[in-house]
Amino acid sequence: MGEFELIQRYFQPVARDTAHPDVKLGIGDDCAIQRIPPGHELVFSVDTLVEGVHFPSRYAPDRLARRALAVAASDLAAMGAKPVCFTLAMTLPKADAHWLERFSSELAQAGREFGLALAGGDTTRGPLTLTIQVHGTVPEGQALLRSGAQPGDLVVVSGTLGDAAAALDYLETGAPSQYQQTLLDRYNRPQPRLALGQLLRNRASAAIDISDGLLADLGHLLQASGCGAVIDAGRIPLSPALRDLAGEEAIGHALRGGDDYELCFTLPARFRDALHRQSPIPLQVIGDVVAEPGLTLLNADKHATPGRSGYEHFGADND
Amino acid sequence: MGEFELIQRYFQPVARDTAHPDVKLGIGDDCAIQRIPPGHELVFSVDTLVEGVHFPSRYAPDRLARRALAVAASDLAAMGAKPVCFTLAMTLPKADAHWLERFSSELAQAGREFGLALAGGDTTRGPLTLTIQVHGTVPEGQALLRSGAQPGDLVVVSGTLGDAAAALDYLETGAPSQYQQTLLDRYNRPQPRLALGQLLRNRASAAIDISDGLLADLGHLLQASGCGAVIDAGRIPLSPALRDLAGEEAIGHALRGGDDYELCFTLPARFRDALHRQSPIPLQVIGDVVAEPGLTLLNADKHATPGRSGYEHFGADND
Repeated sequence: MGEFELIQRYFQPVARDTAHPDVKLGIGDDCAIQRIPPGHELVFSVDTLVEGVHFPSRYAPDRLARRALAVAASDLAAMGAKPVCFTLAMTLPKADAHWLERFSSELAQAGREFGLALAGGDTTRGPLTLTIQVHGTVPEGQALLRSGAQPGDLVVVSGTLGDAAAALDYLETGAPSQYQQTLLDRYNRPQPRLALGQLLRNRASAAIDISDGLLADLGHLLQASGCGAVIDAGRIPLSPALRDLAGEEAIGHALRGGDDYELCFTLPARFRDALHRQSPIPLQVIGDVVAEPGLTLLNADKHATPGRSGYEHFGADND
Repeated sequence: MGEFELIQRYFQPVARDTAHPDVKLGIGDDCAIQRIPPGHELVFSVDTLVEGVHFPSRYAPDRLARRALAVAASDLAAMGAKPVCFTLAMTLPKADAHWLERFSSELAQAGREFGLALAGGDTTRGPLTLTIQVHGTVPEGQALLRSGAQPGDLVVVSGTLGDAAAALDYLETGAPSQYQQTLLDRYNRPQPRLALGQLLRNRASAAIDISDGLLADLGHLLQASGCGAVIDAGRIPLSPALRDLAGEEAIGHALRGGDDYELCFTLPARFRDALHRQSPIPLQVIGDVVAEPGLTLLNADKHATPGRSGYEHFGADND
């Protein structure tokens, strides 16, 4: 099967099924064309996923399609952007019809759910690798950056943390228990927090999606903002499934596991109550922004975070 | 060297050296942000280049950087777009400081020449592969598509064809002759026809860049436009270097070699004289658009294009 036939058979239908009115010209010319609504800016991000590095070898093609698009879309959520479209550059070891059928059909489904139209791409022969670039729009000047946190702001996270990281232990399990299945779903079907991200515009002072782990990503946010934070390990939201299955390791997964793609953001306290009421998912205040750089973790379980008893201090360089 | 350090050391300087006023936020946040001038649309294209497939193994890093960006920029030229910025997703077998230094320094140089700012990217470990997405803008509705050719339009190409394809025979040559060097430069340093592309707006009825060869790419244009063309092999522009070195094979390289990245476009005859005067590079009318689908080649050298004596007919499906 040549590249032309592969695109015609598997990816043209995805483009058709995910069509977005702002994509004026999609697959089939030298370039695609996207309209940007007046008073808006383009927001974009590119991510590469390599088999065996960013997802398991022989990972099911439908899971790969969904997870890859969700991970990419999560960067739009972190900016408060409205999703529009994406490109997919893909190297494939071979053109396996069954694999491509499952991959493209789930890609179309996930694209519709996230509001992302397939607008272009490239396919080449090689080790399985996906590069996805997502495009969204924000009203001028309203994108959420990492750099706006101010001392006195609250540190907030969405959902629960650590589930997907813990699930890596169960990926090969044949018949997972119900709790294992809950964690596996967090890994296989991450939910980019797109609605929450847009709700945070003009409210959150800074935001990031948790892709490398809470400590690392909050560290990036604080470094970009030139301040620090004190967070309380006891307030980090853990799911019942994670508490049950991981026991004392739960907090370690929550602090260092990045595969949940929840949002972490800083919020002036005056927005707290209204945001809690409006948010489509549970939010948890886990600490406060402080002027002094660095991240201080109170009440850390010493099994999970070796360090001085009761708290641990992470310098900005250690994040 | 970690990804963070690699970006800081080699790619942040590229971003700084190529800065474009429409890139409001570049490397370092979850997404980049691009302003789109009022009344304009975003034009974008993604290309993947794999070592050993799209460029020779152990290809010099400075040549790779320039050629990869030029190839990507050529798609903007074919749309008549003004270049703005690009993203680079790169898998590298290892972080070789000397290689990265040469690669990034030439990337900055080529980015400045083409008007393309580095706005984002991703680096991962793996076989050497580059995925570049280029962004440009056009005034609303003025992009050059493949689909607008009309019977009676002229078929025009820029520059000379076949040089880069012939150069593949000399890539390993230690001390190339002057003519060989001329062809090698066409392969190593393709010139995206950006100024010409913008000049063609509101003039050319359809355009494409020649990446797969004149016959193949003109075939794509004609198929998208629902018409055909008659072209004269004797009018296809060949360089003195190609004529001298390739002899009877010159025309074959010109018809089937795609590595020159010249533009092929269709033009209502009334624009011909003014365009010839204004074009920054020589243009050559090679034939006419006709209503009947398919591509007819007159006066083909039978050594180069096996077929019926004197002319050869390429059905739309054979392109």
